[in-house]
Amino acid sequence: MSNHDRPAGRLIKAPENFIRPDEVRTVFAQAKAGRRDFVRGAFAAAVAAAGTGQARAQGNPVPPEGGDPHILNLPAHSKGLGQAVATSGYGMPSQYEANVQRRPSPGLTQTAQSSVSFAPLQSLFGIVTPSGLHFERHHQGWWDVDPSKHRLMINGSDAQILKKPLVFTLDEIMRLPSVSRFHFIECGANTGMEWGNVAVPTCQYTHGMISCSEFTGVPLKLLLDMAGADYKRGRYVLAEGADGSSMTRTIPMELIESGEVLVAYGQNGEMLRPENGYPLRLVVPGVQGVSWVKYLRRIEVGDQPYGTKDEAVHYIDLLPGGQHRQYTSTQECKSVITTPSGGQVLLDKGFYQITGLAWSGRGKVKRVDISVDGGRNWQTARLQDPVMSKCLTRFSLDWVWDGKPAIMQSRAMDDTGYVQPNYQQLRAVRGTRSIYHNNAIQSWLVQESGEVKNVQLS
Amino acid sequence: MSNHDRPAGRLIKAPENFIRPDEVRTVFAQAKAGRRDFVRGAFAAAVAAAGTGQARAQGNPVPPEGGDPHILNLPAHSKGLGQAVATSGYGMPSQYEANVQRRPSPGLTQTAQSSVSFAPLQSLFGIVTPSGLHFERHHQGWWDVDPSKHRLMINGSDAQILKKPLVFTLDEIMRLPSVSRFHFIECGANTGMEWGNVAVPTCQYTHGMISCSEFTGVPLKLLLDMAGADYKRGRYVLAEGADGSSMTRTIPMELIESGEVLVAYGQNGEMLRPENGYPLRLVVPGVQGVSWVKYLRRIEVGDQPYGTKDEAVHYIDLLPGGQHRQYTSTQECKSVITTPSGGQVLLDKGFYQITGLAWSGRGKVKRVDISVDGGRNWQTARLQDPVMSKCLTRFSLDWVWDGKPAIMQSRAMDDTGYVQPNYQQLRAVRGTRSIYHNNAIQSWLVQESGEVKNVQLS
Repeated sequence: MSNHDRPAGRLIKAPENFIRPDEVRTVFAQAKAGRRDFVRGAFAAAVAAAGTGQARAQGNPVPPEGGDPHILNLPAHSKGLGQAVATSGYGMPSQYEANVQRRPSPGLTQTAQSSVSFAPLQSLFGIVTPSGLHFERHHQGWWDVDPSKHRLMINGSDAQILKKPLVFTLDEIMRLPSVSRFHFIECGANTGMEWGNVAVPTCQYTHGMISCSEFTGVPLKLLLDMAGADYKRGRYVLAEGADGSSMTRTIPMELIESGEVLVAYGQNGEMLRPENGYPLRLVVPGVQGVSWVKYLRRIEVGDQPYGTKDEAVHYIDLLPGGQHRQYTSTQECKSVITTPSGGQVLLDKGFYQITGLAWSGRGKVKRVDISVDGGRNWQTARLQDPVMSKCLTRFSLDWVWDGKPAIMQSRAMDDTGYVQPNYQQLRAVRGTRSIYHNNAIQSWLVQESGEVKNVQLS
Repeated sequence: MSNHDRPAGRLIKAPENFIRPDEVRTVFAQAKAGRRDFVRGAFAAAVAAAGTGQARAQGNPVPPEGGDPHILNLPAHSKGLGQAVATSGYGMPSQYEANVQRRPSPGLTQTAQSSVSFAPLQSLFGIVTPSGLHFERHHQGWWDVDPSKHRLMINGSDAQILKKPLVFTLDEIMRLPSVSRFHFIECGANTGMEWGNVAVPTCQYTHGMISCSEFTGVPLKLLLDMAGADYKRGRYVLAEGADGSSMTRTIPMELIESGEVLVAYGQNGEMLRPENGYPLRLVVPGVQGVSWVKYLRRIEVGDQPYGTKDEAVHYIDLLPGGQHRQYTSTQECKSVITTPSGGQVLLDKGFYQITGLAWSGRGKVKRVDISVDGGRNWQTARLQDPVMSKCLTRFSLDWVWDGKPAIMQSRAMDDTGYVQPNYQQLRAVRGTRSIYHNNAIQSWLVQESGEVKNVQLS
């Protein structure tokens, strides 16, 4: 299968996939000098045959009697001394993976005042998103904040609702008992273009505002305990970021009391990346990304929702009849097939592994079904362990492509019993004017040419 | 707590950790203009008080009546427009984390022919090792191998033991059913210097030849099935790398039949890094790193162990009396406290979170006990979920330091009932001449000065 993010060299179908058993037996027969020489000759023959086909074309697929000229055909890396450890102390991906990038949208929020980049889901494996490829969404650009000067303040909307306002340095927070948990973060606007039936070409752009990391930090509950919060009156928390956008969001106290909400400094084993809120961000598992306030500088406990600009004007859903949904912050169960997906090309008929990602903001993914005929028939996919709450889950299914058009869909269910809707079901409730919270079933059309295209079934 | 890998700015203890409640109440009282202005003033006061102490020293910790001059004290990132999304498409850590690096040893294998770098365990969180900080061990340097030209050959030591020799391109392997699993990889020589009681200063150098990733690949069993391997006669597999060292190791067929051994291309969501074997490496969970052959180009099925240079001469353990242990490939249960650890400095008495990593090549970590008095008394640590088989497990324990010398130890147990030995127990069986497979309990001495030092208890 082709992957539009892999360099062209990877797309070339090898002229000879397998060496012929009789050739290998010939090599065996000619291997007079013991196992070591056999090995070298057989491998060289295999490389020559499968690699370029040249040796085969020249009628010379096996080593000649006596001597071992094939050693000369081995690549440089099999004959010489490579590089010692990298001097930088921080490694980078292969030069051949340079096309695996997060990418800004060709048509959306290209200004520094409102910027976004999408994670290349079609090129990723498993559930961990490499931090260098984590999606970005900035409301006033990003900064590399000096951690020695950064502070987190905990206060209350009045002196009774929080008895002992505190300001923490980063070192003080990092001394406290921490937890590490794997969670997805999804922007509320992920898959937003599809509301308008725009059908952007790849799953990087349809679904790439989601990423998944192992986050490490201190439960916010612990900091509120230290500050003497009154949990009877203080049923809401305001989280405020330190960047120029002064991002503020209301978080219901139930989420904090569950222990799930973290003041996080770690992501995938190291400190948060600057684009993801270094040195502190809020982690609000299951809730849309805008509430995971970056560059977190202040938490205020209050007795009512704050109704800030970032929740009263933005991130609301326009419904049929002029109503709107507000504080719709939980990301409902959703999934997407990442291979095969839009922009990829199936190079020939035969076996493929269909694979993708499923998640739910309400708990664990319980089941994922896959259809290859646009939703008429469904098969249950394998789920890769560990399946964790409010975390990406990798699914896969074996498939043999017969070369005819196929419409691929995945439908996820979570452990609350909720089933991911199709577009008809979603639009019946939500209308057509939304930007946010689109969790409908995605359809990819595999065409006879092998090219995969984003389609929206009515 | 100080961390020797963090820049100096992070080591400075803030002169005032907390703002005074009465000051905050004053801000409240003066906040005439509603919640929004209160917030800004209080935060500015907090920053001024806790950040440098200057505002306090000048007797000006609260905003003056009327106006809001403190807005000027806010950092640039709170007032202006930041950077849009990174143009490189692949993000990097903060400039303030530049000291968090993998590092070559000051005294060990510094040549390109035999090179090593150690992961900065003392700076890591959770269980995932960022791929850029994954430890390295090269036997002839590393290469960035062109994946479009790379092939994997599967053959047998004779034509009956494997019926249909195959050569795979990377695209062909990536079409097959894959799995993703979290596993640690530890070099057999990790903690090797401690055999000689060298007491290298930090846990980066004592234990940093271990890392943990989510690996994605195809079970080797599947490839052997496709090639028609005879599992009755074929009880051993030879794995061979394509780099200049022609690394070869024997793997017992039981491990492959369990489905655990993978031909992996993915690591932490993206393709393997060049230093870790891009584009293909063997993943042999629980087994020492040398068997996880990088740049994997060939698998041969045979009826006996191969006794290659990399297992007959290297990676053997010299025992008392001139005997040696060979094929000692399973990494036994082991643990290390990463905070506090050698080279770190406790800046004052009081609360700390003791935390570290535990693992076993035989299954799951069942329990970790911690001693702060050199092994006389033990307390059971918390284990962070998910606890996975042949994977790092993060443990932690709350601790209040009274300022007196303390000797910190961790002792791990796995689900086979095996308990990590102390040095006395290990040496009683293994003597003093080994280089490899040291899984003894590590001791860190916290001195009255707060400095932490590597010590070996007799």
